[in-house]
Amino acid sequence: MTDHRNNALKYAQDHKEQSLEKMKDIISIPSISTDPERKEDIKKAAEWLKKELRELGMTKVEIFPTPRHPIVYAENLTAGEQAPTVLIYGHYDVQPTDPIDEWNSDPFTPTEVGEFLYARGSTDMKGQVIATFSAVDAILQTGDLPVNIKFLIEGEEEIGGSYLKTFIKENKELLSCDFFLNPDTGMLGPDSPSITYALRGISYFELRIQGAKQDLHSGTFGGAVHNPAQVMTDLLSGLHDDKGRVTLPGFYDKVQPIDDEEREELSRLPTTEEFFINQAGVKKLWGEEGYTSVERTGARPTLEINGLYSGFIGEGQKTVLPAYAMAKVSTRLVPDQDPNEIFDMFKAYLEENAPETVTWQLDKLAADFPSISDRKSPWITAYVKAAETVWGSRPLFDRSGGSVPVVVHIQQNLGVDSVNIGFGIPGGNLHGPNENIHLPTFYKGVEALVHFFFNL
Amino acid sequence: MTDHRNNALKYAQDHKEQSLEKMKDIISIPSISTDPERKEDIKKAAEWLKKELRELGMTKVEIFPTPRHPIVYAENLTAGEQAPTVLIYGHYDVQPTDPIDEWNSDPFTPTEVGEFLYARGSTDMKGQVIATFSAVDAILQTGDLPVNIKFLIEGEEEIGGSYLKTFIKENKELLSCDFFLNPDTGMLGPDSPSITYALRGISYFELRIQGAKQDLHSGTFGGAVHNPAQVMTDLLSGLHDDKGRVTLPGFYDKVQPIDDEEREELSRLPTTEEFFINQAGVKKLWGEEGYTSVERTGARPTLEINGLYSGFIGEGQKTVLPAYAMAKVSTRLVPDQDPNEIFDMFKAYLEENAPETVTWQLDKLAADFPSISDRKSPWITAYVKAAETVWGSRPLFDRSGGSVPVVVHIQQNLGVDSVNIGFGIPGGNLHGPNENIHLPTFYKGVEALVHFFFNL
Repeated sequence: MTDHRNNALKYAQDHKEQSLEKMKDIISIPSISTDPERKEDIKKAAEWLKKELRELGMTKVEIFPTPRHPIVYAENLTAGEQAPTVLIYGHYDVQPTDPIDEWNSDPFTPTEVGEFLYARGSTDMKGQVIATFSAVDAILQTGDLPVNIKFLIEGEEEIGGSYLKTFIKENKELLSCDFFLNPDTGMLGPDSPSITYALRGISYFELRIQGAKQDLHSGTFGGAVHNPAQVMTDLLSGLHDDKGRVTLPGFYDKVQPIDDEEREELSRLPTTEEFFINQAGVKKLWGEEGYTSVERTGARPTLEINGLYSGFIGEGQKTVLPAYAMAKVSTRLVPDQDPNEIFDMFKAYLEENAPETVTWQLDKLAADFPSISDRKSPWITAYVKAAETVWGSRPLFDRSGGSVPVVVHIQQNLGVDSVNIGFGIPGGNLHGPNENIHLPTFYKGVEALVHFFFNL
Repeated sequence: MTDHRNNALKYAQDHKEQSLEKMKDIISIPSISTDPERKEDIKKAAEWLKKELRELGMTKVEIFPTPRHPIVYAENLTAGEQAPTVLIYGHYDVQPTDPIDEWNSDPFTPTEVGEFLYARGSTDMKGQVIATFSAVDAILQTGDLPVNIKFLIEGEEEIGGSYLKTFIKENKELLSCDFFLNPDTGMLGPDSPSITYALRGISYFELRIQGAKQDLHSGTFGGAVHNPAQVMTDLLSGLHDDKGRVTLPGFYDKVQPIDDEEREELSRLPTTEEFFINQAGVKKLWGEEGYTSVERTGARPTLEINGLYSGFIGEGQKTVLPAYAMAKVSTRLVPDQDPNEIFDMFKAYLEENAPETVTWQLDKLAADFPSISDRKSPWITAYVKAAETVWGSRPLFDRSGGSVPVVVHIQQNLGVDSVNIGFGIPGGNLHGPNENIHLPTFYKGVEALVHFFFNL
């Protein structure tokens, strides 16, 4: 096994060029999932993956059509029942390229500059998909697989309302595994391998408060008709206390506290208070009393106003008493909060506090559960060891403030934990112009995955 | 004099057709003051007035250019020094016609339907200007003027920042008079002649609260960076107490209380609670405890949010932590409140209450003083008598919730009271599509003005 590991690592090192060529190949297909004109390119990317997975040595490769973009599935279960099974996630669709003028090179012509390869999809996440392919390739070219492998690669990650959720629900047998490997997160620096072990959930709603049937003249009606913008500010203002805590009754009831060991772990992260200040460009931070910014954004639930609208917002003045006010409000949730319960709490709050002078409507726009993985699971332990070998340092354990619905759907439907990693580093410009991947980190990522599969 | 009065009234009655034709004539000129492409039409309207005022028998007619749209001035002082001098106000510019699709006929092709004439500017206020012309014409065609008359007709009333204020300041001698007749208000019904004896002032500001230098991801930064939309709701929510009173420190200090006699007068108005409910289309009214809606909107100061904006307000969801929030806030003021002092109070409130986690900027968009006229002045008494003769009922005394800056500028610069009247009725759709004037009321208005001039 040690020989096989070393041979596989050597193979990977000797075939960097081939890995890079494959990455360039798939990146050159402009598979923008939100653009109807790219539907053929999406199909082409799925076909490319199918062919590649076959050449890789997968024993079963299948394209599952969906109402929109197909899902690519592949497996090689030759390691046998004694070995663990890993379900490897990927998505082959990419973000649009706007603003196109700000790109220094064509987004779909992979361009090497120094240690970086510039192209849309390089980091998010075709590069990561190729890293998993190259690692599996290196192992299979030099021997047998030490683990059973399943690939699940979708084409709708960059679209709202992916079909993947339904697919997972309907294919539990096919996708059954011991754990889920999601290489769609990232590293906190080129020398900082990272594991994202928790993701916040979200409950997102839109509130509309209606006063008069149409905008009124603020001179004629001001003072006699309750201003819905004022009602909105009254209702939203009451949602935080002066310690930065959310006051929605019941909001914290199911929140798992963070223990000292986890706080210690989180304090190792390079995302210091100063980092937050610089990134946001604010003079002073804010938040729930008693927690650091890392804790506030990862391990504690929050409530944000994402949008606010009422009346006249153009240049100059218009003396209008608005007919309605609208707010987009979202809460980020941590285990064991339930996004649907949070929605109900907000509704109850409105029923209790909205005045009789207005009518209101609350719509649910998103509801995703939070998730957390055991930091000491065999899978995470295997990756910790792999990363230590490659980077020479223990990985950072990070809780993501954002939500990754697929991880939650896997946890809910297949009942398994996730290993959320990735080889993109800060500055990779995901979703922005000049997206890029740091090639030395990518190559190290392939090696880390080889170690990981052997460690399992 | 009685003969002359009767002859003039008869002349007016016999020349309704001619009055109507003149109204249609000036209305057909699309003098939209905010539209740069209508600059020639504005000029044309001013020239039309000049010619008309000459034909009317004014002894001096002059067009004063301004940096934007000209002011038309005319006078006939042949009544002599013993007679009072009235300065008659008018504006010949009109509002834009948007939304044009909602008009049933072309806005600048006056269209008679039943008792109504439909056209932009019919009620606001070319029709009112023609009513004063027709009354003066009837008197001059049948004898001498019983009063000295000055006309002051501007072309910038529907624009923010009219030049008229400066013109009044610089031409006090030219405009000197015993009182100011402003026919730019209206009637509360076709059988309810009305006198507006008080106008609220206004202090209008825009508040911008800046958090991060750009929009942030609400997952990554939510909970660590103070959300400017939340700060905005906190600051604006604190501005009213649960009795509907404005909490801004000092806000009520200079407010003149209303006495029992005035409350009695205001209670005669047809603008009952039910009227407000129906007009606004709300299920329940709101306002400062201890006052009726008429008092709240006319005799009491108020504070309104006119506009509110932050973050993402499109369809669906976007998980953004907004970089800034903006609010347009205005206060309606009553004597003796000072709009500049109110602005300073708001600024002081922000200095006291805005948190250090954000920066803010407060801009003054408008500052007009409130005004009130003596309900028992000889001028108002003369109009009361005229209205009683024509409509058979004592006029209603109304305080307008809106602001009419020219009345304040006249009061401040010329030191005279105003008679604010008009012959538009509810449903006239000023500023909206299908603006119209009720012709029988317009003809009665001409007669009322004839009586008024003789009564003085």
